[in-house]
Amino acid sequence: MKAALLMPRARLSEKAIKLIDGKNFGNLAFVMSDGSPHVSPVWVDREGDLILVNTAEGRAKAKYLKANHRVALSIFNQQDPYEKVVIRGRVLDMTSKGAEEHNNRLSVKYLGTSKNPHHQPGVGRILVKIEPERVVNE
Amino acid sequence: MKAALLMPRARLSEKAIKLIDGKNFGNLAFVMSDGSPHVSPVWVDREGDLILVNTAEGRAKAKYLKANHRVALSIFNQQDPYEKVVIRGRVLDMTSKGAEEHNNRLSVKYLGTSKNPHHQPGVGRILVKIEPERVVNE
Repeated sequence: MKAALLMPRARLSEKAIKLIDGKNFGNLAFVMSDGSPHVSPVWVDREGDLILVNTAEGRAKAKYLKANHRVALSIFNQQDPYEKVVIRGRVLDMTSKGAEEHNNRLSVKYLGTSKNPHHQPGVGRILVKIEPERVVNE
Repeated sequence: MKAALLMPRARLSEKAIKLIDGKNFGNLAFVMSDGSPHVSPVWVDREGDLILVNTAEGRAKAKYLKANHRVALSIFNQQDPYEKVVIRGRVLDMTSKGAEEHNNRLSVKYLGTSKNPHHQPGVGRILVKIEPERVVNE
């Protein structure tokens, strides 16, 4: 996929940017192959208006996101949970390129070290790029 | 719906009970009529193994939960977000009976007062009872 194709159609709101840039956790909702919803807590950051999360080969999340690109992400301020936003969007790209480095960056952001204790050597990381389609400031 | 029908088929885990009973926020995922996922931050408590959330007439969440009973709920410890659980389940009942009182109880739990500043007089509350089907301790 060419970089030029990775321009999101919607912009993140100022609040969404503040919440994503802060050390706050996202909850990523997606739909499984049987049509039922799932939700998974995620570390999150961004590249301009693209939302970035990271997963690993073999995870259910990776499988379902490959099959169905539609997602929703809820994120609230860890210090003030009433400051929150919900973003609906679509997975634009899932790639191993830069995925390990991105996971290390997330680890530094959330744990203060790239030595992520949950890191499993030999398990390929996947960088997931999400295009926001609708930002719901609640 | 008779009370006898409201026995959940799965039990909540000890961790799920601790997280739900704590002053922690849930993120409730559901599927909209176009098949895409949505996720909404919610106050949460329980009645035995049934998970209780509260919504209001006219909300998108109320509409979609009536149409599609499948849900997933993520909840983490507000003080330690790495202590978390994801529960997949099904809406067993949505009722106005006791919904206002339940909303007041949630307000006391989360805000310390039944005078919820977000309360909209005249808007009917809906008590949503969720049967856990699978508890994923992450």
